[in-house]
This record gives sequence, C-alpha cells and structure tokens, in this order.
Amino acid sequence: MTERIFNFSAGPATLPESVLLQAQRDLFALPGVGMSILEVSHRSAAFETVIQEAEADLRALLAIPDNYKVLFLQGGASLQFSMVPMNILPSGRSADYILTGSWGQGAVKEARKLGAVREAATTAATNFNRLPGSGEIELDPAAAYLHFTSNETIFGVEFQAEPAAGEVPLVCDMSSNFLSRPIDVSKYGLIYAGAQKNAGPAGVTIVIIREDLLGRIPAGLPAMLDYGVLAKNGSMYNTPPCFSIYICGLVFKWLRNEIGGLEKIFQLNQEKAGILYEAIDASDGYYRGHAEKDCRSLMNVTFRLPSEELEKQFIKEATAAGLDGLKGHRSVGGLRASIYNAFPKAGVARLAQFMAEFKSR
Amino acid sequence: MTERIFNFSAGPATLPESVLLQAQRDLFALPGVGMSILEVSHRSAAFETVIQEAEADLRALLAIPDNYKVLFLQGGASLQFSMVPMNILPSGRSADYILTGSWGQGAVKEARKLGAVREAATTAATNFNRLPGSGEIELDPAAAYLHFTSNETIFGVEFQAEPAAGEVPLVCDMSSNFLSRPIDVSKYGLIYAGAQKNAGPAGVTIVIIREDLLGRIPAGLPAMLDYGVLAKNGSMYNTPPCFSIYICGLVFKWLRNEIGGLEKIFQLNQEKAGILYEAIDASDGYYRGHAEKDCRSLMNVTFRLPSEELEKQFIKEATAAGLDGLKGHRSVGGLRASIYNAFPKAGVARLAQFMAEFKSR
Repeated sequence: MTERIFNFSAGPATLPESVLLQAQRDLFALPGVGMSILEVSHRSAAFETVIQEAEADLRALLAIPDNYKVLFLQGGASLQFSMVPMNILPSGRSADYILTGSWGQGAVKEARKLGAVREAATTAATNFNRLPGSGEIELDPAAAYLHFTSNETIFGVEFQAEPAAGEVPLVCDMSSNFLSRPIDVSKYGLIYAGAQKNAGPAGVTIVIIREDLLGRIPAGLPAMLDYGVLAKNGSMYNTPPCFSIYICGLVFKWLRNEIGGLEKIFQLNQEKAGILYEAIDASDGYYRGHAEKDCRSLMNVTFRLPSEELEKQFIKEATAAGLDGLKGHRSVGGLRASIYNAFPKAGVARLAQFMAEFKSR
Repeated sequence: MTERIFNFSAGPATLPESVLLQAQRDLFALPGVGMSILEVSHRSAAFETVIQEAEADLRALLAIPDNYKVLFLQGGASLQFSMVPMNILPSGRSADYILTGSWGQGAVKEARKLGAVREAATTAATNFNRLPGSGEIELDPAAAYLHFTSNETIFGVEFQAEPAAGEVPLVCDMSSNFLSRPIDVSKYGLIYAGAQKNAGPAGVTIVIIREDLLGRIPAGLPAMLDYGVLAKNGSMYNTPPCFSIYICGLVFKWLRNEIGGLEKIFQLNQEKAGILYEAIDASDGYYRGHAEKDCRSLMNVTFRLPSEELEKQFIKEATAAGLDGLKGHRSVGGLRASIYNAFPKAGVARLAQFMAEFKSR
C-alpha cells in the first residue's frame, strides 16, 4: 500500500479510506457479479441495486420527505446554474439571488442568460468575508425562487441557517457543505450539489427537488436538461455516471454506519474546524482569518499570514511535510485548508501543530 | 481475484483486464502522489498529466489534425443531441439527419426542439436492418451539417464508410464504434462519442470538433453547453469527470501499446465478428441475422432464433454458462452480442460453440 498524504484540496477532496479500500477490493469484479462496476450495464440488476441503495441511504441520512425527487445527474453545479432557471424560472417571473461569493456570482451570471433575476443581497463590498444580515436581504415576495450558496469554498463563509424566504421556494447550491450537517430538507424547494467535496468523486451531481416544482417546467426543453424527464426515468434517461454513483453510495453507507449520521459528522466537523480556528485566534494576529467569526465555514478555513512571502514559504514547507493543497484561491490569496467530512482529524491536528511551529521559527 | 464472466452488454461494456488491474492497483493512492485519483484536485499537476496524456494518446491513435479540438465532457451522447444544434445550427439554417436506428431518431428529435432539421434518409421502413444507398440520401447542399450515426447498437448496422456530404460538415455520433477502426478525422466537422463502449467507463463523452465550427456558436449559450467555453478551458471550465477521463487514458494507452493501434484493433474486431456471423450463416437458417450482410456491425451482432421461446431458453442457458447480457433490445427482439474492442476473442469463440451446441440440442 502506497503512503498517503494529507489532502487539503478544495475539491475533488479526500474520501474515506474504508470507501477507497472497498472500491479497490471490488474494482476488478464485483462479488457475485463477475464484472467490474465500470463494466456492468446500467440496466442490470447489479446496478439497479447500487443506485437504489444510494438513493435510499441518502434519503435516510437527510430524512428527505416523500414529496421530493432525488436525481443523480452530470455536469456539476455549473450546469445546475443553467438548469435551475431553465426549469423553474417561468417566463414573465423573476428569481432572487443572494451573493456571498464566487459560486453565487457564477449562478446569477448563468441565470441572467435565461431569465429575469434580481440580486437580493451581496457582500461583494467586503470581498465576501461575511454573510448578509436578515435586514440586508431585499426579498421579492413574488420571486420564482430565492437562490443562495450555503458554503462559499473560496472565501470560507458558511450559512449557519437558511435565509428567511417566506413562501418563496428556497434553492440552494449546497455543493461544498452537503451532508456535513443536518438540514431540514422540507425548507427547500431544490437543493443541488456537485459530489466531489463531501459526497463522492467528481462526475455526479445530486439534485433534490420538491415535486410540485416539476409542474413549472416548460415544454420542449432538451431531454437531458429537463428535471421532469430525468426524474421520470429515475436518473437513467441515458447511461448515468455509474461509478461515481457507486462511490457516493459507499460514502453514504460510511456516513450512516461508520460515522453514525449527520449529527455525528456535524459534531466532528465542528471539532476539526475548531482546532484550526483556535490556532488562528491564538496566534496574536500572526494568522488572520478571512471570514468574520460568525460566518466561518466548517469546510474551508481561509487565512492570511503577515506577508505573501511568508505565505509562499508556509505552503512550500507544509507541502514538503505532507500537508498538500493549502494554497488559497487567487481571489482571496493566502491559505485555505479544506477539511470536508472525510478529512481526518489527525491531519487537522498536524496542520495546527505546523502552524504553531512555523510561527515560532 | 474474483472470477469474471463474459459480458456481452451493449454498454457500459467490458474493459481491458490490464486497465482494470492497473486502476485497481493504484486506486488507494496514485504512485508518487499519495492520493487516490478519486481525490486529486483537477488543478493538480497529477491530474494535468492524466488529461494531457489522454488527449495526446487519443490524438495519436486517430491522427487528429491540429485544427481540431478534443473535449472531455459530461452528459453522454444524449446531451450532444442538443449541444450540436445549440452550437452549430445557426438560426435560419437547416441541418440534415440520416436515420438508421434509434440513436439517430433520438438525435433528430432533440435537434427539432432547437432548430430546423430535415430527414435526408431513413431506413425505418425495414426496421433499420440496412443502410441507405447513396441514391437514397437526399442532401441539402446548404445544410448546416449532415448528421449520421456510424453504428446503431440496437439494430446492429454499421457504416463501412462515411456518407458523401460534399461541402456540408459531417457530424457523427460515433459512440458505439469509436476507436474500433481507423477513420479519417479530416472528413468530419464534429465527432462525439459516449465513452462507455470502446473508450472507457460511463460518465465522460468525447467531442472532436473542427475549430472553424466554433465560429458559429451563438452568444449567450449556457457556459456548460458552449463548445467554445469548454474548449477554451481545456475541458476544465468546471471540475471534469476525473476518474472516467483517467480510465479512458489507460484504455488509450492499452490500444496504442498493447494492441498496437487502430489498424490492429480493426483486424481483431473483424475476426471476432466474423466468428459470430459465420456461426449465424452456417446454421442453415436456424439463426437469422437482423442486419443485411453488407451493413453488419462489427460491434453488435443481432440475430433471431426460430421462436421467442427458444430465444428465452437460449438466453437463460447462456447466462448460466457465463455468457451474460445477450438479450436483444425490445425494438428488435431476439439476441444481441455486443463485442466491443476489449471483449475477448475467447468469449466470442465460446458463444459460437454454445450456438452450435444449442442448435443441435
């Protein structure tokens, strides 16, 4: 077995070792099937079991109500930026967007190509280091939906609770904190999440949509972009990304059976992030967090050092010490430690120790 | 190592055993990287190498001219049914489609939602058991493009050469015989292929597009559906399906280094299909091929038995004998043996032997 390092990448990201080992063991031939999961027909009983168990485990983890459809799609959150307005922003209506970072900006840019949108709030003025207060959000009560990004990976800000939307359906890009904490799905009209942070590998996007919203879909959409067609065919209108769904299924089982559910992983995520924010706060200002304290993300810890030269030095030495992927996004600079569900607590402790040592050197 | 069976599925389909074994060996941690290919950032040097080598090997295999872009996308051929007209069927023009089976019908159905299309030829009248003769194809010399499906998996008919298109750009859904024989890419404007038959696992779609066609793309397309945006970003406008691309890369290396290129695989595919068609033709009419002889597919061998009951019996006994996935599609009935590039010759010989034994029983 080759040695593994600590991978702080913002995504694709660390997967549970037990998931990797099971996938590795069965990659040549699924037990009792005699074919690799990479080779089985998506219409086979073997794959039917895989996708049905994945959906059932996801429904159990999130307690998804029966009036929601679960879809396993392709194209990432970036394709959802377009599919959401194509499907549920009827002509003649307008949608509200809350902008708290680059992903929200991406979503509104694509939506604008397809319909009328409003910026209900934005924190661009302070380089997205905070979330808008409820008084700052100017809702259109007639909006087709209110879109927000529950966690912004680049800036490291995370909603602690859903913005108040009244009767307007809430649509959430939950890509980077999906399954990292319990949520009440019934508060949402539509949730979408690229899998490659907390749910699995790149190549599959999960959509959870309240059934009544399917009634809004205009006729004549391309079949592959029509939630109704995709839902009616159980995510198998055409060949789905079988392997990525299979790995998601293993991750869901890991979350249920090894971790013990979303309350448990939330507690673990709070502990892990707590170690790093403590290291920042106890550094007498040597390390400076980008996000305001009450908006800090449990998934992406963003911080600066006293100078860009020290930041480069830190990244270089950390990488050499097996702490990989810490370079921050260019729009924030500095460092970013992405510590999704499967990132081990030992790696967080090691980074905190490294931070203390680096400061004292 | 678990025992493997012979998988005649129409796709996802058999992969080379050496590819599966290498993927299995490195799944927990890529050598020298310390992370699984499922976990590495798509912006990392490790993944840059994967995608660049995959493209370079594909270019070498097909001798793709420099004025063509190679894209690794998501959504399957079914999303290409829509992306092709969105991108290269300008408003006010019309596109021609040759229909030789269900996939061509699917392509034209989606295109019709987006623009003007013409059926230049169809063989529906004989349940798609043949290809149109050149005299049957009514080309519009002003067409934006001429679309055809090089191999129809359901009916088992395959073009032996490109239809004559004059100056009209040829667009081909090559999903099910991509890389199974040499082609002259310079004859095409655009080629697309879902990977899950000959090129890799489900979850990635390869598009090869002549650069001048990018000039037709209308402004304001959703970014994820715009070939220009995707090409400009080297297939990484957002997180690509990393693992599927990695497996394709291994398959391309297998084709180059173990098989010896497309001439070699073409010869092997002719030998394999020849064994089954010989078994059909030597059966005194017990087995009846669906496709006319000069249109027979090297990838999907479709045939009937004297009765549906015998067909059920055949499938049941074959499955028990480790010959899996032989049930034909409901629109043709009977049996279908899909024998893509990686399907072993030994499995073909075993099926031919089984056919002879079954007949004599």
